[in-house]
Amino acid sequence: MAIDDGLVELASRLADLARPIAVRHFRSTLAVEDKEDESPVTVADRQIETVIRETLTAERPDDGILGEEYGAERLEAEYVWVLDPIDGTKSFATGKPLFGVLIGLAREDRAALGVVDMPALGERWIGGPDHPTTFNGAPIRTRACEDLSGAWCHATTPDMFLGADETAFRRLKTAVKHTLYGGDCHAYGLLASGHVDLVVEARLKPYDFMGPAGVILGAGGAITDWRGEPLSLRSDGRVIAAGDSVCHRAALDLLRA
Amino acid sequence: MAIDDGLVELASRLADLARPIAVRHFRSTLAVEDKEDESPVTVADRQIETVIRETLTAERPDDGILGEEYGAERLEAEYVWVLDPIDGTKSFATGKPLFGVLIGLAREDRAALGVVDMPALGERWIGGPDHPTTFNGAPIRTRACEDLSGAWCHATTPDMFLGADETAFRRLKTAVKHTLYGGDCHAYGLLASGHVDLVVEARLKPYDFMGPAGVILGAGGAITDWRGEPLSLRSDGRVIAAGDSVCHRAALDLLRA
Repeated sequence: MAIDDGLVELASRLADLARPIAVRHFRSTLAVEDKEDESPVTVADRQIETVIRETLTAERPDDGILGEEYGAERLEAEYVWVLDPIDGTKSFATGKPLFGVLIGLAREDRAALGVVDMPALGERWIGGPDHPTTFNGAPIRTRACEDLSGAWCHATTPDMFLGADETAFRRLKTAVKHTLYGGDCHAYGLLASGHVDLVVEARLKPYDFMGPAGVILGAGGAITDWRGEPLSLRSDGRVIAAGDSVCHRAALDLLRA
Repeated sequence: MAIDDGLVELASRLADLARPIAVRHFRSTLAVEDKEDESPVTVADRQIETVIRETLTAERPDDGILGEEYGAERLEAEYVWVLDPIDGTKSFATGKPLFGVLIGLAREDRAALGVVDMPALGERWIGGPDHPTTFNGAPIRTRACEDLSGAWCHATTPDMFLGADETAFRRLKTAVKHTLYGGDCHAYGLLASGHVDLVVEARLKPYDFMGPAGVILGAGGAITDWRGEPLSLRSDGRVIAAGDSVCHRAALDLLRA
């Protein structure tokens, strides 16, 4: 079932609202405070989520919202908007332009539409399983990669893999051609556009992966948890995305070995 | 002794020549070949170094040149140009815009001037010990950070630290506030502009660090090898840069502990 054009338009408009706020605060000298989990959070984070929530509350009052900054409401609704106003806050805080605004729309707890917007780069991916992904308005697709040994893999940091996850990640890292770090959410966009073959991460929250999930599914890629299950609001935070389903299965086999 | 304005103008012009070549090939579908050391190298790499060498040979025939792609000539000259046409080739190859063009000028084997140019971002740092560093033409400075426990640290990848270097890096990583990966040469620019406090790396070549060295020294920062010695063409590839000299000494103490 195709997704309503009005929802696509609304998701784009939410990203349009967020972008200038992010750009205005990027590399400014605002204070970075610590949250309990040690991740820096900026004024931009809160301003963006506030303006998105206000818009959603006005235009889609029955939809649920799950946001990084201001929590959950109406998660039992058919549609739930999943918001990370600034993904990559450490990048943002150090002047690195790879932070993004992530807007996911889950329908019946499955990724239905996603936006990965990079305010400092002027780059936007938007798509979902029923809405082919575009990059700055132009259609894009993932690339073929049937052999794991030829795969370029991204992960934000090896520090996100702890205990058994670290062992699993090392198996995958040994098998692929190259592993790069520090891509943040931008890596999912690069995968959708066919520049990267794999993104593997752990300890993510739904607002970290629901936006990217739509983008990747709409570009012909695969994205699941490490057991191969579709991502949902109840996923455990382990994510594996691939441009090629053969590569995805091979990576899953290694992660679960 | 101030550096000759003609040399600053020439260094800028070399970066101007490089930028459109890099942008033209970025995210194009050109083949990425492997060199013996496994780093991917692109057509852009060779085209850029060629045009820079041609210009230098015409305008500065007595100067030495050390380039990543085409090797060394006249290293005994007073001035030696040290060139990395595409630093961050893995970023370049995966569509990540953090690759840079690095142009260093060594005088009597010490960093005299450096350019860190980011073609895909439209960002350029240029400076040296006798030429205050600018970012896109505007003067910038490193920031104060006297306490290592408050420092934001960048490294391209933890995989560059092997054996005793890995142990030393872990000591430093434990002491700082945050360690981020994947910044490539851009991290040195961010340090010069006061967005980052430390950059630590290993296994670098002179063309990886001579351009950044000029930029950091001209912004008031410190950059040396891990023994605290000034960088030279004969340095061992271990580099520690800091915006604050107190932070630099504290980091050195930990690396050498």
